[in-house]
Amino acid sequence: MPTESDEDRPEFALIDWIRSKSKVREEIEQGIGDDAAILNCNSGQKWVTAVDVITEGVHFTSETAPALIGRKALAINLSDIAAMGATPIAAFVGIVLPQQRDETYARQIYDGIFSLAEQFNISIAGGDTNSWDGGLVVSVTVQGVLNQGEPIYRSGAQPGDHIFVTGPLGGSLGSGRHLKFTPRLIESQKLLEHFRPTAMLDLSDGLGSDLFHLTSSSGVGAIIESAAIPIHDDVPTSVQDDQRLHQAISDGEDFELLFTLTTEQSQELLKRGPSLGLDCYRIGVCTAEKNVLLKLDDQQVQFPQGGWRHTFGS
Amino acid sequence: MPTESDEDRPEFALIDWIRSKSKVREEIEQGIGDDAAILNCNSGQKWVTAVDVITEGVHFTSETAPALIGRKALAINLSDIAAMGATPIAAFVGIVLPQQRDETYARQIYDGIFSLAEQFNISIAGGDTNSWDGGLVVSVTVQGVLNQGEPIYRSGAQPGDHIFVTGPLGGSLGSGRHLKFTPRLIESQKLLEHFRPTAMLDLSDGLGSDLFHLTSSSGVGAIIESAAIPIHDDVPTSVQDDQRLHQAISDGEDFELLFTLTTEQSQELLKRGPSLGLDCYRIGVCTAEKNVLLKLDDQQVQFPQGGWRHTFGS
Repeated sequence: MPTESDEDRPEFALIDWIRSKSKVREEIEQGIGDDAAILNCNSGQKWVTAVDVITEGVHFTSETAPALIGRKALAINLSDIAAMGATPIAAFVGIVLPQQRDETYARQIYDGIFSLAEQFNISIAGGDTNSWDGGLVVSVTVQGVLNQGEPIYRSGAQPGDHIFVTGPLGGSLGSGRHLKFTPRLIESQKLLEHFRPTAMLDLSDGLGSDLFHLTSSSGVGAIIESAAIPIHDDVPTSVQDDQRLHQAISDGEDFELLFTLTTEQSQELLKRGPSLGLDCYRIGVCTAEKNVLLKLDDQQVQFPQGGWRHTFGS
Repeated sequence: MPTESDEDRPEFALIDWIRSKSKVREEIEQGIGDDAAILNCNSGQKWVTAVDVITEGVHFTSETAPALIGRKALAINLSDIAAMGATPIAAFVGIVLPQQRDETYARQIYDGIFSLAEQFNISIAGGDTNSWDGGLVVSVTVQGVLNQGEPIYRSGAQPGDHIFVTGPLGGSLGSGRHLKFTPRLIESQKLLEHFRPTAMLDLSDGLGSDLFHLTSSSGVGAIIESAAIPIHDDVPTSVQDDQRLHQAISDGEDFELLFTLTTEQSQELLKRGPSLGLDCYRIGVCTAEKNVLLKLDDQQVQFPQGGWRHTFGS
């Protein structure tokens, strides 16, 4: 019969280490160490849950620093939480390690997770670590609570609403920004404190894909001003202008917020935004006509639909 | 510029299909279709969250029927929820598909998930499906609520408490039972309705591992009667008795509940259990002395520690 003790099993040493490093927020009645976690809930509160899985060769490469992989797995979920108008409370981490990677590597993944969790005051409340004969997979679930009692869906935009993004787009994958971006939690909180977005989502696939999610969910069309689309410095200046615009629309993994405001609130944001720390870009307007159009210098064309497929090299 | 529309992208067709098949419980204010899910919460309610990841070659093989893989990924989480004394409400499913598998295969995985979800009245409230150049990974997160207001931890056992399991052990992997077991949600609910377990967890690694989690968390020891350990019919009768016992202790993936009751409640369960549909097996007693012992015919030995490592062929 086996006589090996738990102390000899590296997964238990890892769990103890994770537990020792995990901040415990007051909402977490039970974190790591039992069959499941227990989260307390105030009266009438609503919980927001986001789940994302990232994989080697798709969302990162085998050369990516493990701390950046862990960081990204958490960050993309925080971006979803921000897009609902919520504040993250707890994260759950599932890691499937390649057999040739050791516990040190797993801890480095967690270091990246802990560092971002610390920044946004999030508890790591549970998870699961396995190893196998395959590439690295990191699955993260984040639970949060709504900032203003009600979520901001992608479906609430009305004709006439103005369309904004929280930052410049494009070049995220090429530059490595997709591993280091700051999820727009603070921007989301500030926005909800001072304004009432009618619809919001985060730009993960790229404007050329996510814009259509907003318009089709809301039952509206849109006219986007090509000159108003902010192009990120990460898009090489050496490429031609139309290619730069293409990249801003199609590269994906921007993780900026795309949101809509009424005309009145839009004016207000353009006026007061900078002093509130909200440097947002108005890129267009929602229309009753359901076409999604791109306004170039002297013509309107169908907005180029298609986003990034989350696969390196495709 | 890409002009491909979302309709051409199979992940969106799959998401629509998943959404159309998902039951929406009243707690689910927003399920699949936005950046995250929204769950309502009654006053003072506590949420229970479990996360498990299963992988090809470890928890199933490339020949395992996809519906059984999906079923297992959900079932092992439901087993954790049962072990906390909770009722599951919503599940979130992350699937990483091998590139050679098509959407039909993904739907078959979901068929297994939906079938079990239906049986226990659970909403599939969100998830994420990707594909990659690797094996199949299924990550499931389940959220539930406590049946009796307070969770049952693994740490509450006291010296003198009697130790029970909800069913016979061993042979789960060899027989394929690990793909088809029924998570003990009903048993957990009945147990909490009529009794108050002092500690509880589910047997995933095997009695030889999970018993030690209960005793060390609770700060107790235990004496287990070897003759009282129920051996599953899935353990071949052709093998010798000591080998059969070894399998019941070490095979793992039983997904029965291991729990403790005070002496009084223990008598009560043995008397009333069968009429309540609770056919549980008393296998031993907790001790103040922290050793964990196995009582054989004429001697006591250290309980063989070590459980299944969740890897086929190791």
